Amino acid sequence: MALAKGSEETMLIGIAASPGIAIGKALILTEAVFAGEKSEVNGDQQQAFQEALEQSKQEIILLRQQVSQQTGEEAASVFDAHLLMLEDTSYVDPIREAIGQGADAVSAVQATMQQLVDLFRNMEDEYMRERAADITDISRRLIRNLTGSTAVDWGAIAEPVIVVAHDLTPSDTAQLDPSLVLGFAAESGGRTSHSAILARTLGIPAVVGTKALLSKIKDGQLVIVDGDTGNIVIDPDADTVMQFRQKAAAAAQVRAELALLKDQAAVTIDGCCVELAANIGGPRDIAPALANGAEAIGLYRTEFLFMDHEAAPTEEEQYQAYKAALEGMQGRAVVIRTLDVGGDKQIAYLDMPKEDNPFLGWRAVRMCLDRPELFKVQLRALWRAGCHGNLKVMFPMVSNLAEVKQAKHLLFQAREELLAEDRPVARKLQIGIMIELPAAALIVDQLASEVDFFSIGSNDLIQYTVGVDRMNENIAHLYQPLHPGVLRLIAMVIDAAHRQDKSVGMCGEMAGDLTCIPLLLGLGLDEFSMSAGSIPQAKKLIQSLSATECSKVAAKCLAAGEADEVRKQLAVLA
Amino acid sequence: MALAKGSEETMLIGIAASPGIAIGKALILTEAVFAGEKSEVNGDQQQAFQEALEQSKQEIILLRQQVSQQTGEEAASVFDAHLLMLEDTSYVDPIREAIGQGADAVSAVQATMQQLVDLFRNMEDEYMRERAADITDISRRLIRNLTGSTAVDWGAIAEPVIVVAHDLTPSDTAQLDPSLVLGFAAESGGRTSHSAILARTLGIPAVVGTKALLSKIKDGQLVIVDGDTGNIVIDPDADTVMQFRQKAAAAAQVRAELALLKDQAAVTIDGCCVELAANIGGPRDIAPALANGAEAIGLYRTEFLFMDHEAAPTEEEQYQAYKAALEGMQGRAVVIRTLDVGGDKQIAYLDMPKEDNPFLGWRAVRMCLDRPELFKVQLRALWRAGCHGNLKVMFPMVSNLAEVKQAKHLLFQAREELLAEDRPVARKLQIGIMIELPAAALIVDQLASEVDFFSIGSNDLIQYTVGVDRMNENIAHLYQPLHPGVLRLIAMVIDAAHRQDKSVGMCGEMAGDLTCIPLLLGLGLDEFSMSAGSIPQAKKLIQSLSATECSKVAAKCLAAGEADEVRKQLAVLA
Repeated sequence: MALAKGSEETMLIGIAASPGIAIGKALILTEAVFAGEKSEVNGDQQQAFQEALEQSKQEIILLRQQVSQQTGEEAASVFDAHLLMLEDTSYVDPIREAIGQGADAVSAVQATMQQLVDLFRNMEDEYMRERAADITDISRRLIRNLTGSTAVDWGAIAEPVIVVAHDLTPSDTAQLDPSLVLGFAAESGGRTSHSAILARTLGIPAVVGTKALLSKIKDGQLVIVDGDTGNIVIDPDADTVMQFRQKAAAAAQVRAELALLKDQAAVTIDGCCVELAANIGGPRDIAPALANGAEAIGLYRTEFLFMDHEAAPTEEEQYQAYKAALEGMQGRAVVIRTLDVGGDKQIAYLDMPKEDNPFLGWRAVRMCLDRPELFKVQLRALWRAGCHGNLKVMFPMVSNLAEVKQAKHLLFQAREELLAEDRPVARKLQIGIMIELPAAALIVDQLASEVDFFSIGSNDLIQYTVGVDRMNENIAHLYQPLHPGVLRLIAMVIDAAHRQDKSVGMCGEMAGDLTCIPLLLGLGLDEFSMSAGSIPQAKKLIQSLSATECSKVAAKCLAAGEADEVRKQLAVLA
Repeated sequence: MALAKGSEETMLIGIAASPGIAIGKALILTEAVFAGEKSEVNGDQQQAFQEALEQSKQEIILLRQQVSQQTGEEAASVFDAHLLMLEDTSYVDPIREAIGQGADAVSAVQATMQQLVDLFRNMEDEYMRERAADITDISRRLIRNLTGSTAVDWGAIAEPVIVVAHDLTPSDTAQLDPSLVLGFAAESGGRTSHSAILARTLGIPAVVGTKALLSKIKDGQLVIVDGDTGNIVIDPDADTVMQFRQKAAAAAQVRAELALLKDQAAVTIDGCCVELAANIGGPRDIAPALANGAEAIGLYRTEFLFMDHEAAPTEEEQYQAYKAALEGMQGRAVVIRTLDVGGDKQIAYLDMPKEDNPFLGWRAVRMCLDRPELFKVQLRALWRAGCHGNLKVMFPMVSNLAEVKQAKHLLFQAREELLAEDRPVARKLQIGIMIELPAAALIVDQLASEVDFFSIGSNDLIQYTVGVDRMNENIAHLYQPLHPGVLRLIAMVIDAAHRQDKSVGMCGEMAGDLTCIPLLLGLGLDEFSMSAGSIPQAKKLIQSLSATECSKVAAKCLAAGEADEVRKQLAVLA
């Protein structure tokens, strides 16, 4: 959206991807710059592809080392995924087949890239959608190496610039030199794209998903990138520049304050202490979790490990991933959720049935209990990984007691098997379940005797309680986290669990929402698990609250008739 | 399934469609007998069709009179639907168009019949699926009148027989003479087919949906039709015949006892009185409801009125239908549920969006509130019909308080409009809502101030509470009406409503289930609404129960951990 102002300056609104404000001249990078201009390859195409593949691997290994030294392990770990992809048969085989059928190597890479990008782009899950950027990245690298063209030479940038592009691949982003690149602005991408994650790690302000950006901006124009709000100002006048400089100074101050909180506990002014944990998709998310002061991992979504593969990951692959996360957390708790697919997360190799109502379907633990041969592999990996830290296992989509008993039965069977094979296993694993179905929420007193802890999956719990598919735009107004019925259910869960001395966490959107946190605190929630980046502000908020006050307001919210009334009650605390 | 026994006798298992046992010789009616053998029509095809149409109407009017006199208004009312269909442009127009494009009249009728039959057969709702039989019936009649062939001449049957056919149309069934037709057996059809309904009204034992029936039976063979169990025995030996005769005598005794209950109240042995009501799909279901002793209509599903039409029914059409039901009930309460489409009930002319999870989608009152122009027509018809009896209006799929307020606002707006037009309107309508979403169940205390009564839609309530699409076979074991969480939610609804002196009914499957009735009685349910045929047995059961005992057992069920435990508790009462 372009907002015309008095002068020539133009404002565009994108997605705030990495905080901070950058002001400088634009350096526009077009698609052609990335992909190289020469597109014909001579000679044997299979051999050319093989050589490009090897060269790309070498480049990535070098790049990884370089980024690791300059920026740290966290930023570098992106490239492990790239290396894996270059060895993944679901990526490499279709390219070789296409060449075998007469395609030239460049076209074969492009076609396979397009196919996979389309596949990932259509997934509901933002995390998976953003994997499309990784595929584009390695494919571009392969094409450059096939055609002999060169990527952008970052070393040639002489003065600090703001990089403007349709999209930045992780490779491009990782090579940005913070001393020369003041910020970046992209037309596409979302908050969870690797580029956005890397920009945050590098501390470079970034705005992504800015529609029509490239048609509004010219090379060398002055531009402001506001990574806090998602605003981009092109050709700003002197007043605007001054305003943003002041804003940048103030924002830097706030960030500095939040950074100071990193090692502090989340304690209210009246001494009530809660746990702030991070939700992760794999070991590579551990570093940002720790950087933001996560005291634990409240939700490790193992489905990404399954979605990244062309076949179910082996016990060893799973073990390594879980072990890496546990070691990264250095003794702090890591709650690993067992495979949660189905619903909007489909995995081709699992051959799941097409359902009329997948959210009310054969998903998560329901599928795992029906496929013990698949489930057992994960359970074995968990027992083995449990030797390397504080692992807690959590079952998703439990609706009744029998399912918990069945899941535990398989879990202990897996342990017996490992012991019989003389494999080292954890002495004990804490066992928990997700509360995401009203049926489970209503019988927490009964479930409590079977588990060590509960974690409320607020996204699904809301969805089933109000009967609204949270992806359905026609009824989005009925998806109400603050619906008094939802709050009463959450209160019931917490009260019933506490009566039996079991802790209750939450790992849905609500847990990281600054509006909901005081309410959840007032209801007695023990653990808040959220995206790592939300932790500092959540901690700051909690440190400013009185738990006693929150309890009083929460009681009023439970007696409210509508979400709007709840919002009004909560406004008192703001 | 054919079970071979010692002798030549063969047993088949079908669907029990009309109670009682019949023993007699088989009269097999093949498709050709119904449709006539001559299939060519000479002369102007449009004119021939028009003449056949008029002739068919006259026949149906005569048949209606005859059935009305011989059997009663209830059986006769089926033919009103047939007359309507012969005037329905969605049926007649495609035939005329096909003839216009060169088809002969017989083929045109056959093609349109096939198209509509396919459409109805693919619907999830059994009631709608069975409408296919009506279309077949009128189409066959048209073809007979076009070709000049004659239908079966029932008058020619000399000795009492058991009629065996692939399917019996309502017309065929209505003309059966109970003194000559001992029973009937059909290969296709379900319990709610018109044939089944008519057979029940005529008191003719019937089994339908009997696979491979026609390949197992020969004309003139002795056959037993057991309309209580759905069994058919072909060529039974003497022992079998004797067993069935004894069984028939015993069953007749039970039926006579149940019939005696018709005008009795549903009162427990300790004096607790509940209301037994019927669920209906339209005015034609009123007669069987009354015949079975329904004290009220607990659920009038108005969506059938919309599904039977090619465009939304007019205010006048709706008014007539609601008025007919109210007049039929002679002052007894009729709870009319406003349009409940979406989910598995799609209506082409409403142009509803394709959804990923239709059960969690834009359905029922959600759609009505977004389309006030459609909703208002129904609300106006309800106010007008309310002058003719005790009409209660009920809104489905309410999830929050705001929806109730909006629906009521439109309802009273409709009243104002009618008054401004000087139309007669009901002085007052009782207003209720369905409780089918956990969110609504959890805030009944808040909703109570806005409504006069509640009715629990147990099918949907269970579905959302346990997160299971009730049509999904893979997870059918998780759809548990006796899940303690479901029971606790029902108990909360009843307790909260009673605290504010509001009554609570139930109109899902549970309300008519003999296992669940004692439990629901113990939880304090005020009204049980079920299919008419279930009422006598439900009444008999209730008259045998102690409400005090049921309350005690219900309390134990609420404290149970699993559905199996609940079942064990309930066994005490059985």
